[in-house]
Amino acid sequence: MQSTSFSDAECPIARSLDKVGEWWSILIMRDALHGLKRFEEFSTSLAIPPSTLTRRLNALVEAGLLERRQYSERPPRYEYVPTAKGEDFKLVLLAFTAWGNRHQAPEGESVQVIETASGRPVQLTMFGVLDDQVVPLDQCTLRAGPAASEEMQNRLR
Amino acid sequence: MQSTSFSDAECPIARSLDKVGEWWSILIMRDALHGLKRFEEFSTSLAIPPSTLTRRLNALVEAGLLERRQYSERPPRYEYVPTAKGEDFKLVLLAFTAWGNRHQAPEGESVQVIETASGRPVQLTMFGVLDDQVVPLDQCTLRAGPAASEEMQNRLR
Repeated sequence: MQSTSFSDAECPIARSLDKVGEWWSILIMRDALHGLKRFEEFSTSLAIPPSTLTRRLNALVEAGLLERRQYSERPPRYEYVPTAKGEDFKLVLLAFTAWGNRHQAPEGESVQVIETASGRPVQLTMFGVLDDQVVPLDQCTLRAGPAASEEMQNRLR
Repeated sequence: MQSTSFSDAECPIARSLDKVGEWWSILIMRDALHGLKRFEEFSTSLAIPPSTLTRRLNALVEAGLLERRQYSERPPRYEYVPTAKGEDFKLVLLAFTAWGNRHQAPEGESVQVIETASGRPVQLTMFGVLDDQVVPLDQCTLRAGPAASEEMQNRLR
């Protein structure tokens, strides 16, 4: 557990980590986006202690990435489904996939990203918003945006 | 701290998290890729306890994301510089930036991604490898790659 919270930090990376910056949370989102919904499914997939799983699922619901839905009244049972915000987290998971494939898979790729309909391979690319040009990663940088404080502006100068 | 290791797992996400799946590590890489090099610089930027910072820097060196270079002999002092593998981790940070901007920045963007030379805005996009077409995120999925085990193939069926 972390002792400092960055939830008030301006940095979008720090803010995101404050919501999902925990190992298990990211793997739970991986499984949820792959279609797993029920406590037992996550539990089997991740071999995670039940108390930890309960805590992380609740945190992801509170952070707005998962929605908790009752699917049985007696006994009361719930399933966990990604919200739009949770669906969009796929971007982060695909970045981890790409980086892991490039640097942590000496034996070759176990997982690839494809377009569902066509099966053609796709990859994460930095892309010019205005002119549809691919921009290599090492030619990208961060700058202060419209909501940046003076401190953030100095930091990114 | 986590009690389970996924380093042997096939999943590239789990493998990546095993290397950098710790809140502080990701923020240290953010700062290192922004040009911070010295212990005191990370310490000031992150307000991180020194013992934690030492531990996380060593772990990032061991995982091959940072290189430790001596810059002073008396007293012996070291700085930490991203390797090629560490530079490439920018992809994950930019994904966190994009997601954070979209979902955790109600007051507007404090940080934007631009092409360094031109200043034009860029964004992470899924891109067809073969035909240079943009593919919307919700039309992408994972499939088993050439190195997938039978278990992974079943999982991604």
